[in-house]
Amino acid sequence: MDLPHGSSISINGARLLERIAELAQIGAIENTQGCSRLAFSDADREGRDLVVTWMHDLGLAVTTDTVGNVVASTSDDGASGAVMAGSHIDTVGTGGRYDGNLGVLAGLEVIEATLAAGIDLQRPLAVAFFSNEEGSRYPPDMMGSLAYVGGMSVESVLNVEGADGTVVGEELERIGYRGSAPCPGAIPHAYVELHIEQGPVLDQAGLQIGVVEGVQGISWTELVITGQSNHAGTTPMALRRDSMVVAGQVTVAARAIALELGGSQVATVGSLTPHPNLVNVVPAHTTMTVDLRNTDEKSLQLAEDQLRQRTAELAEAEGVEINSRTLARFEPVEFDDRVVDRIEQLATQRGLSTKRMPSGAGHDAQMMARICPTGMIFVPSVDGVSHNPAEHTDEEDLIAGTQLLADTLLALTEVAW
Amino acid sequence: MDLPHGSSISINGARLLERIAELAQIGAIENTQGCSRLAFSDADREGRDLVVTWMHDLGLAVTTDTVGNVVASTSDDGASGAVMAGSHIDTVGTGGRYDGNLGVLAGLEVIEATLAAGIDLQRPLAVAFFSNEEGSRYPPDMMGSLAYVGGMSVESVLNVEGADGTVVGEELERIGYRGSAPCPGAIPHAYVELHIEQGPVLDQAGLQIGVVEGVQGISWTELVITGQSNHAGTTPMALRRDSMVVAGQVTVAARAIALELGGSQVATVGSLTPHPNLVNVVPAHTTMTVDLRNTDEKSLQLAEDQLRQRTAELAEAEGVEINSRTLARFEPVEFDDRVVDRIEQLATQRGLSTKRMPSGAGHDAQMMARICPTGMIFVPSVDGVSHNPAEHTDEEDLIAGTQLLADTLLALTEVAW
Repeated sequence: MDLPHGSSISINGARLLERIAELAQIGAIENTQGCSRLAFSDADREGRDLVVTWMHDLGLAVTTDTVGNVVASTSDDGASGAVMAGSHIDTVGTGGRYDGNLGVLAGLEVIEATLAAGIDLQRPLAVAFFSNEEGSRYPPDMMGSLAYVGGMSVESVLNVEGADGTVVGEELERIGYRGSAPCPGAIPHAYVELHIEQGPVLDQAGLQIGVVEGVQGISWTELVITGQSNHAGTTPMALRRDSMVVAGQVTVAARAIALELGGSQVATVGSLTPHPNLVNVVPAHTTMTVDLRNTDEKSLQLAEDQLRQRTAELAEAEGVEINSRTLARFEPVEFDDRVVDRIEQLATQRGLSTKRMPSGAGHDAQMMARICPTGMIFVPSVDGVSHNPAEHTDEEDLIAGTQLLADTLLALTEVAW
Repeated sequence: MDLPHGSSISINGARLLERIAELAQIGAIENTQGCSRLAFSDADREGRDLVVTWMHDLGLAVTTDTVGNVVASTSDDGASGAVMAGSHIDTVGTGGRYDGNLGVLAGLEVIEATLAAGIDLQRPLAVAFFSNEEGSRYPPDMMGSLAYVGGMSVESVLNVEGADGTVVGEELERIGYRGSAPCPGAIPHAYVELHIEQGPVLDQAGLQIGVVEGVQGISWTELVITGQSNHAGTTPMALRRDSMVVAGQVTVAARAIALELGGSQVATVGSLTPHPNLVNVVPAHTTMTVDLRNTDEKSLQLAEDQLRQRTAELAEAEGVEINSRTLARFEPVEFDDRVVDRIEQLATQRGLSTKRMPSGAGHDAQMMARICPTGMIFVPSVDGVSHNPAEHTDEEDLIAGTQLLADTLLALTEVAW
């Protein structure tokens, strides 16, 4: 589809960087560039208060819904029919300053620059920050956007209990962000999220912009391998049923499955614990996880099948039992071709180098894709580091990504689907 | 060498079993058959007091040395020139009732039965329990017997600090077992230790007696594998330096090395911890241990060489660094052929089924072997379970092993080296 060329404004890079730095002071982790603002914590409240102040300063209509999602719009109709930017401002326990925050503050900058330019918008612009994207304190991640699109009831959200024994509804009330705007929320005309890549692909290739085509499907499996505990010295090899050896074999098999399938398939054994975890005891049982991701649902299912088959073979050969359960399963999400193509085209017009790519991480955009045409823009993460105070994106990339977000949002105000 | 046939007495099986049961009441773990008597704890004191009372009841000369080793002898010269039995009465945190205790109480039973039979001994009989054989509270294991044979100075022993911040010398003083008998101790004529196998070999084969030829050499290596932490979704396989994959490969390689070398070679990965140990993070570094054992020093060195070589190859292939350090290294110990042959011959005379075998676990006997002709007798451990409250040896095996110990000790009183 051939979209019309949008109006153009120039964003104010210095103002963007100042806001990122100011927000990063809240929950700042000493001697690092990082932040700790877990969802619904005091630091989250302070961060929310600051961003909401900025939203009000621009004269936007600001609403908070019943799960704490905040939407600011150039229209009193809020997100309804608006071209919307957004992301989140909560962080993992020891996070970086760009993850999430960039998308929100870039959206705010686009609106400020657009208002300053006095452009007569055909549709309103909006920017949102969604509650608890990280899921570090309360499961699931992307909680706020999931509720916004009707994928989780407000009641369920408010009743979620965290590992620390606190409850979402009470914490939301405590920090003053249990609002009254309806959830599920209004349907925007389009949604575009700018985000750091959180992976090494752009940085390694020396490219400026990732044109995100969709989000990988995710399959998390926990395996509990039960063999027999034995003394490491007194048990001949032939008499062993060693859960740790099988865990090692499964780790090697997961790597092989990813390499054999190729494409976007990745496989990770991130968590593994043998019991009793002593140097001289053959572990009685070992618990491990396998994280499989693919942009293609059929390929992901193939990877799952191969893992199941290899696991069963290895269990039989060693004489151990394996109990497997699914910890998480999401099908891949495909973003709207029209939005994706438009982002790529506008990036090229700005002379930015681009790469079409999937997102390996989950984002609020994948929820929003359920209710409106959606796309994402990635900027490089140095060395692919994220969820870590050392997370970094160069200033020129932050600014280039925000300018591309401005071009995209304005172009989409002129498009009818 | 053809040893003379010894005098014969019959041990009192019921009395042996009663003492085992009575000692097991001290530090008993509720609802199990197990015991918790960590070295130099209040429970260890109570256990020591009970056994020392029994020693005194038999009219034996009882001494406690400066590291808490207790020796009871039919002679006022103590262990000097005596035929000595022994083992330990401390346990791991959640141990069984037979490990160690059997050897001590069997030695006591042999002495009691011999005295009751009024046999005129050519050499004294002695029985010892050595301090802190398990090493669970204070390193190293076999501490008391190591000091007894001069392998560790008394000063070093007394200054050892435990993980709980306590110090051996102070705890020994506190429980009243910092004695005045000299350490290193007197040299016995011979030393024989009866012990449960702590492995499955005898039980699996349906055999009654293990004639222990020596103790396997032990090589413990800790590997710290350092790769790069990455997001499990956003990092393509080709860009990974995954410490956990290498840990899995090393685990598989350790198994393969043991199988290729064959013989008594065993290899165990008992402890492994990836960091940060999260399902969706490629572990930045993984710490693991490899436990290699062999009865033959050259073969053990070969296994170590192969592990080093495979580890280096795997590290290079993945682009990770591996730092390796030795946590423990003991050469194999060979027991005295004359004692070993004699045990086998006497077992056969009793109609007991036997198997010559190495000990895969460490025992006080391997220290005593440095100063006098030494041997060990194993009785079966059901399912090879040990260091666990479920540890079990059938009563008839306990009695048969003790009778064989009696035959052996008496025979050795009549032997000159």
